[in-house]
Amino acid sequence: MRHDGRRADELRPVRIERGFTEYAEGSVLVSFGRTRVLCTASVEESVPPFLKGTGQGWVTAEYGMLPRATHTRTPREAAKGKQGGRTLEIQRLIGRSLRAVVDLAALGERQIVLDCDVLQADGGTRTAAITGAWVALADACEALVARGVLSASPVRDQVAAVSVGLVGGEALLDLDYAEDSTCDTDMNVVMTGAGGFVELQGTAEHGAFDRKALEALLALAEKGIGELLVAQRESRA
Amino acid sequence: MRHDGRRADELRPVRIERGFTEYAEGSVLVSFGRTRVLCTASVEESVPPFLKGTGQGWVTAEYGMLPRATHTRTPREAAKGKQGGRTLEIQRLIGRSLRAVVDLAALGERQIVLDCDVLQADGGTRTAAITGAWVALADACEALVARGVLSASPVRDQVAAVSVGLVGGEALLDLDYAEDSTCDTDMNVVMTGAGGFVELQGTAEHGAFDRKALEALLALAEKGIGELLVAQRESRA
Amino acid sequence: MRHDGRRADELRPVRIERGFTEYAEGSVLVSFGRTRVLCTASVEESVPPFLKGTGQGWVTAEYGMLPRATHTRTPREAAKGKQGGRTLEIQRLIGRSLRAVVDLAALGERQIVLDCDVLQADGGTRTAAITGAWVALADACEALVARGVLSASPVRDQVAAVSVGLVGGEALLDLDYAEDSTCDTDMNVVMTGAGGFVELQGTAEHGAFDRKALEALLALAEKGIGELLVAQRESRA
Amino acid sequence: MRHDGRRADELRPVRIERGFTEYAEGSVLVSFGRTRVLCTASVEESVPPFLKGTGQGWVTAEYGMLPRATHTRTPREAAKGKQGGRTLEIQRLIGRSLRAVVDLAALGERQIVLDCDVLQADGGTRTAAITGAWVALADACEALVARGVLSASPVRDQVAAVSVGLVGGEALLDLDYAEDSTCDTDMNVVMTGAGGFVELQGTAEHGAFDRKALEALLALAEKGIGELLVAQRESRA
Amino acid sequence: MRHDGRRADELRPVRIERGFTEYAEGSVLVSFGRTRVLCTASVEESVPPFLKGTGQGWVTAEYGMLPRATHTRTPREAAKGKQGGRTLEIQRLIGRSLRAVVDLAALGERQIVLDCDVLQADGGTRTAAITGAWVALADACEALVARGVLSASPVRDQVAAVSVGLVGGEALLDLDYAEDSTCDTDMNVVMTGAGGFVELQGTAEHGAFDRKALEALLALAEKGIGELLVAQRESRA
Amino acid sequence: MRHDGRRADELRPVRIERGFTEYAEGSVLVSFGRTRVLCTASVEESVPPFLKGTGQGWVTAEYGMLPRATHTRTPREAAKGKQGGRTLEIQRLIGRSLRAVVDLAALGERQIVLDCDVLQADGGTRTAAITGAWVALADACEALVARGVLSASPVRDQVAAVSVGLVGGEALLDLDYAEDSTCDTDMNVVMTGAGGFVELQGTAEHGAFDRKALEALLALAEKGIGELLVAQRESRA
Repeated sequence: MRHDGRRADELRPVRIERGFTEYAEGSVLVSFGRTRVLCTASVEESVPPFLKGTGQGWVTAEYGMLPRATHTRTPREAAKGKQGGRTLEIQRLIGRSLRAVVDLAALGERQIVLDCDVLQADGGTRTAAITGAWVALADACEALVARGVLSASPVRDQVAAVSVGLVGGEALLDLDYAEDSTCDTDMNVVMTGAGGFVELQGTAEHGAFDRKALEALLALAEKGIGELLVAQRESRA
Repeated sequence: MRHDGRRADELRPVRIERGFTEYAEGSVLVSFGRTRVLCTASVEESVPPFLKGTGQGWVTAEYGMLPRATHTRTPREAAKGKQGGRTLEIQRLIGRSLRAVVDLAALGERQIVLDCDVLQADGGTRTAAITGAWVALADACEALVARGVLSASPVRDQVAAVSVGLVGGEALLDLDYAEDSTCDTDMNVVMTGAGGFVELQGTAEHGAFDRKALEALLALAEKGIGELLVAQRESRA
Repeated sequence: MRHDGRRADELRPVRIERGFTEYAEGSVLVSFGRTRVLCTASVEESVPPFLKGTGQGWVTAEYGMLPRATHTRTPREAAKGKQGGRTLEIQRLIGRSLRAVVDLAALGERQIVLDCDVLQADGGTRTAAITGAWVALADACEALVARGVLSASPVRDQVAAVSVGLVGGEALLDLDYAEDSTCDTDMNVVMTGAGGFVELQGTAEHGAFDRKALEALLALAEKGIGELLVAQRESRA
Repeated sequence: MRHDGRRADELRPVRIERGFTEYAEGSVLVSFGRTRVLCTASVEESVPPFLKGTGQGWVTAEYGMLPRATHTRTPREAAKGKQGGRTLEIQRLIGRSLRAVVDLAALGERQIVLDCDVLQADGGTRTAAITGAWVALADACEALVARGVLSASPVRDQVAAVSVGLVGGEALLDLDYAEDSTCDTDMNVVMTGAGGFVELQGTAEHGAFDRKALEALLALAEKGIGELLVAQRESRA
Repeated sequence: MRHDGRRADELRPVRIERGFTEYAEGSVLVSFGRTRVLCTASVEESVPPFLKGTGQGWVTAEYGMLPRATHTRTPREAAKGKQGGRTLEIQRLIGRSLRAVVDLAALGERQIVLDCDVLQADGGTRTAAITGAWVALADACEALVARGVLSASPVRDQVAAVSVGLVGGEALLDLDYAEDSTCDTDMNVVMTGAGGFVELQGTAEHGAFDRKALEALLALAEKGIGELLVAQRESRA
Repeated sequence: MRHDGRRADELRPVRIERGFTEYAEGSVLVSFGRTRVLCTASVEESVPPFLKGTGQGWVTAEYGMLPRATHTRTPREAAKGKQGGRTLEIQRLIGRSLRAVVDLAALGERQIVLDCDVLQADGGTRTAAITGAWVALADACEALVARGVLSASPVRDQVAAVSVGLVGGEALLDLDYAEDSTCDTDMNVVMTGAGGFVELQGTAEHGAFDRKALEALLALAEKGIGELLVAQRESRA
């Protein structure tokens, strides 16, 4: 029994609220328990320099946390004058994860930017961001179809993510902040709707983990991501 | 009749939602129509260098806009590596406005930081921010009283703000983005509960304005701020 | 009687020295008492990106203070690696004030940059800067006419500025540093030659101010600006 | 048969050259084929702020690439004024990997900084850096023992790293740049001398990978790391 | 005969105006012809970290150019967010030159900052800055004596500087901008009152120069600096 | 007899190792005793903006030190977010020195970037860098000839550099760090193969130096550079 009453293999309550803001082509407020991330998808009719003239599009992400998303206030990155290493690492992860399921040639020479801003952080912000951003991205692509810009959505599959970890030797699904800060091993797993792995990032915070623990963690992640994929589909039904 | 059906002296629907996030000592989502600003108040047991050892406290503000708060995406200031002039100007205004109604000596040697982050921008973000931030600040101060840190709240009065402007020669209350971008004169007015002016910032975007127009604008602002002060009190009732 | 012997409605000695430096198209050293600001106008045959191809020109300003313009040394912004919020706020104000009296279409697709650098600061640097920069701008525009680039100056009116404030309940014109740092309310007023307001920025440093005080301050400002407009004209006679 | 004649499960020639520079407490030039990284360990008698007064030490890493380490010149990060996301991500990985095998309490309140600078880059720079930095770290710790600062080395185990990947469906060990830029899945694996995983970072560059592929990649990594651990021991014999 | 009518060994008109601004402990406007540099000396009761607790003082310099000091406008370094290499090189040179004639132990644990800001640039700004800054420094030190802070001035000797160069094979003294931009070799020479060299910086802009040319340039520099030392003394008489 | 057994007019052992890395068009590891600098020459088919369309090429340099090149660790400039004044000064010196012997018109509209990265610093890093960079530059130019891009190398002469200094009144050639940090006067001399001076930078660290001392230092420098020119030629034989 976990500190919040969940079973080891139980996700926190997941909520995917579409249209949270009105201007973005896709806008989703995703909650994994107390973790709440606003994901907006913005379509831009230009691409990064390395793609100019190739006819191919791009999907990228930016990540941020409001200063008081956290238990104690974190200095604002804009005021510090730079994004930290953790921020850059996370936004690179989100971008790669989404690109894995988009046909960039079919998108055409335009860019979709996913802004994932954490309103409240209780662990798992990057996995919530990926899961919510996919919905915003899918909405933005359908908007392009609806406007006649594209004949079909270039989104080829779903993608969702969850964290798993070892706490006191036990494998747990979807760690909250309290669990995350005491765990021995923390792993973020990103999977497609078809069940393939897109990203696997495991870190032993103390000591090391073995193959058997890895198996247990991956099994939990597969279960959790299965449920997140359902939540994504239901939110768009 | 304005483009959204309002009368010249009518505010947009105002909503002040307390406790929007859970960790901050004060947390308010304020809406002036489609403009939505999340205002959090964070108490820190330290003060800026120039106040160290004086026994006096400080109240300050930071302002930001999510990249897709706007109709088209605005580059993220954290990614650009600096806050723009408009951002700095607004956060300085918010800080001054709030300090005008706080007894900094009674606050004691601690700082309250108001983070005002715009989730959606449809004109009047700085006036909504001041109006919402006051509620978050008042809540944070009462929390200090409730925890026994202070014997009484150092907040001496309310403070609220509204924009007024001349559009096609007519004075209008609480401009939205469409009105703001076509107005001849734009004025932000900050007033206390006792009816005094704290800040007055008028700008003639085209041409100049005269004393009579100024009178009309101030009368509108007084009316609007009166209603905002009521909304603040009702939200905390 | 004020600490320097002035009456409440008296400006400090104003000096507008044209041609202080030789290379700029307009170059003015303006003094409001001990406050001395070097204002140069530079004509550039290019415009900011948002105006490219529109045939319309632009007028903008940059503001700086030499490190020892102040009573104690202020760190150099170039060495700190960024301009502070106060600097950005002031240079935005100067630019807006000057644009209010220039026909940007008549200027043609070129830019005039006003650099306002404070050699000595004793209060009122932004109002001195606006007042002096207008003269430099007018000179630069006439130089364009003299060189046959333009057939007539695009400057449609004068613009000048002054500060007023409440010190110990009394309204005073053109505050110096000693008055400015003890005043209850400080207001910067920018007006055209035709007597209209371009900018009005009033701040209650302690408490708040009422309509009657505002009336008194505006009356003082109108008187002072009237005298500054004369000084501008005389300097160019 | 790979393009350079290696078998699928074959490392590139590994060279670990200790004492490459003379001043650092540990200095290692590590080569994985053409990839060459200079790793120096510097002992500093101070710790980051969050550890002050705790009696506990810290191990951290910084990573850089010489501009012409790469096939075409890469702009210098110092000249650009910031470290890129990739750089920050890699140096965080190196730091975490090394801390996993150091008893930070036994190190005492001092810091060891591992500077990993890539002289030549042909794929696998981060794994070479971890493998070489461990040797520099171990040398620096023994130097502390030799100087009587510590009674025993706080390094509890070895740690080494290798990349593995799927190229055209086949699992390959220790990808060089040519393989890395065409692979479907790329995985960096960090393991201890005792055979536990410290970090696992797998990325599907195109599509996704399944459990079976993961098994194959991990088996390859275990083999390769086993050989690297031997090379580390031999270099210090 | 030079383009402005000077002989090869003739300085431009030198003017050293003390007390140009009122707040600095030393304030000098120095002119070498059209080149005009405002040099202020600020006494600060603190020293850089590496001198804390040593009882020894420091003399340092900062250099800047107003954007329109030059024939065409140069972007403002504060707006660009960094000082250029030329600026840093010059301010390091000024600081070293002044420290050469100050007894830093006799100064006591305080710092004197020389701000050298170019109001107008027509070649030789660094040599004018050194020559003028010495006067400001000497004034500031005498002010410390006058205030009873020091019993005697720590300034041990004069220091002055001039540029010399080869233009079309001929050695010229005190190059202006037109000469400087066409010269083959440019040399800045800094000498003490006692006739010793403090700095010698010669650069062959095209080709190279030989010993004989060097002799000629040094002889010219000695003559010019002799006259500048007189001008310094006369300005303080 | 110097602390390392050298005579006053003796260079440290010089080693010029070509092809130290494999990708650059020229790559040289140069050693002056313990000082070791990796110099790479990169050919880029573009030029800085001020040369676009002129048909003329450019040669430029960047300089850096690995953090632990020095006796104690120096903070990484990329992590600090800017290059220091010393770095900028040195890389400007290297660039100017090399351009002095290259026919930029004959190079054609392309740029050669010399990256000089100090692996180990024991005094004289800038002179070693110039001496080594010339070899890398010459190799890169010959590679352009070999590839048929140019018909002849645009390198017109050799260029090499050495430091000389006065230590305890005695003139010494090629100072190492221990000598450099105690010397009275330090001078860097850059000369061509034809025996002309390209750069002369002398600094009196304490006091001043006279003409006689200057003569002695120049004589030493000429001798040392003569030997370095031989070493350059032998390395390319």
